[in-house]
Amino acid sequence: MISLTRTKIEALIDLRSIAPHIEEAYRLTSAGEVNLPPVGHITFPDQSADCHIKYGHLIGSESFVIKVATGFPNNSAQSLETGNGLVLVMSAKTGVVQAVLHDEMLLTDVRTGIGGAVASRVLARKDSERVLIVGTGPQARRQLEAHAALMPNPLRFELWGRNTERTKELVAELSNEFDVMHSDDLQTSVKHADIIVTATGANSPLLQSDWVQAGTHITAVGADALGKQELDPNLVKRADVIAVDLATQCFDHGEVSHAFRAGLIHKRDLTELGVILEDPSKGRITEDQITLVDLTGIAAQDIAIATCILNAHTK
Amino acid sequence: MISLTRTKIEALIDLRSIAPHIEEAYRLTSAGEVNLPPVGHITFPDQSADCHIKYGHLIGSESFVIKVATGFPNNSAQSLETGNGLVLVMSAKTGVVQAVLHDEMLLTDVRTGIGGAVASRVLARKDSERVLIVGTGPQARRQLEAHAALMPNPLRFELWGRNTERTKELVAELSNEFDVMHSDDLQTSVKHADIIVTATGANSPLLQSDWVQAGTHITAVGADALGKQELDPNLVKRADVIAVDLATQCFDHGEVSHAFRAGLIHKRDLTELGVILEDPSKGRITEDQITLVDLTGIAAQDIAIATCILNAHTK
Repeated sequence: MISLTRTKIEALIDLRSIAPHIEEAYRLTSAGEVNLPPVGHITFPDQSADCHIKYGHLIGSESFVIKVATGFPNNSAQSLETGNGLVLVMSAKTGVVQAVLHDEMLLTDVRTGIGGAVASRVLARKDSERVLIVGTGPQARRQLEAHAALMPNPLRFELWGRNTERTKELVAELSNEFDVMHSDDLQTSVKHADIIVTATGANSPLLQSDWVQAGTHITAVGADALGKQELDPNLVKRADVIAVDLATQCFDHGEVSHAFRAGLIHKRDLTELGVILEDPSKGRITEDQITLVDLTGIAAQDIAIATCILNAHTK
Repeated sequence: MISLTRTKIEALIDLRSIAPHIEEAYRLTSAGEVNLPPVGHITFPDQSADCHIKYGHLIGSESFVIKVATGFPNNSAQSLETGNGLVLVMSAKTGVVQAVLHDEMLLTDVRTGIGGAVASRVLARKDSERVLIVGTGPQARRQLEAHAALMPNPLRFELWGRNTERTKELVAELSNEFDVMHSDDLQTSVKHADIIVTATGANSPLLQSDWVQAGTHITAVGADALGKQELDPNLVKRADVIAVDLATQCFDHGEVSHAFRAGLIHKRDLTELGVILEDPSKGRITEDQITLVDLTGIAAQDIAIATCILNAHTK
């Protein structure tokens, strides 16, 4: 039985070698090749805290995965991380526990970043160079790292955050490794971006539809629960391609749910990312289209990255 | 973060000190003081295998517990255990993983044994001395050990199994430590028993109603899934007290579900074990009553025993 600490897991992460497995996870999900039971959930109402248990099996694969993730917002008052958890890798042949990955949410953060970059890679214009990251939290950084690692061209990043000071701090830190500037005007930066990644916890639109130029791609990862929203619903309606990681989930509580509830889009307007990865002609077909992907996170990504880490450890 | 192997966990088990916490688990469950979300379940149909995820929180307690239990029947062909799994103890204050108990089903076996003895203790006649154990699997042994440890009087055991050879082997092994004989006639042994514990995987009745004498107590732990059955439904109807660990669960797939579906009993005929432990006058009130308890296993038991093990380790 293998037990890995967060530090050991971090050393085994290679974004480029994990990315094809995350792509495969999206494809298998859309093809119905993943056994994904309903997510388990327990709440601790006195602290507005909860724990999610996501689990599933890529049919035919040797392992299945159970991810336990907790969110305790009061932790920050004690200078503790609000997110915690671990990932269990279990044999799908014998039921034996193969590994306990004490990732403390690291793998969720990383697979979400890779998911964003995988989506941008298949949907954005091939000549995309200017990437605007909206947000200053851990996921904003993961998106930047994954896009830098996985997109075909060298990228110039701009970073915009609602808190200017935190934005400048993060830019200073990231500029040691990446070509990154801070944006002091969101509207102007949106106009000039080839790719926009929104990764905030916002609960009202930050991006207005008329700021966005033809040809832009938008990867929206912030809205992963009811009440969260980053985009003007008219922007969702206006997009030529509206991609989602899991249609049922995104309609229920993703970014596109707002446009859907407002009657601006139909279910038939959505295409799952796995379908586009399988057949890119179902995504962007001209240079001037606006493409958009709404990512809420799916258990198949957790399965894929956990299996990669275990394989990297044992090879 | 604490990680304990099965061997270490075994060394920390003390049936007498755990029993009060298992009793408390039943009481809290019946009082609605346990947050028990629906059990998670994933199947592996090509192998008739599955994995259950049971989790919950005794409201107000410092920890919550997630139990992962797998059942892979084909393992026995490779001389592997069919049951595997682990138990996670998590802080209900911060969401941090406090302990990973690699019990490989040991704690489930032990808490089920203790549950049976706790039920017999509150429901059987106080002068009970003769205990008939029906079954020869791991749970039959656990029931015997728990009854020996937890009942007030020294006990004389009889063991009956459908496989005579295996029965004799188990009796030979247990007789080093316990007063135990093998039974070669189930009907006769039933007549003479003060307490009968059924712990088989049977799917048709082993015990007939007219074999059972007034004053007998029966603890039935085998029927924990649809299709399993150990008792004549008329025996369930005939019992003066029909106790269950969790009414909703027992009606759905416990021993009493057969009598219920046959129209022999009503929901109002059942009393939860937790209610009887809280107020024993709701159980046996005369020496000649027949009492019966149907135990399907509840997550509160898992929470209680995991917390006990962690406390025993850290004290």
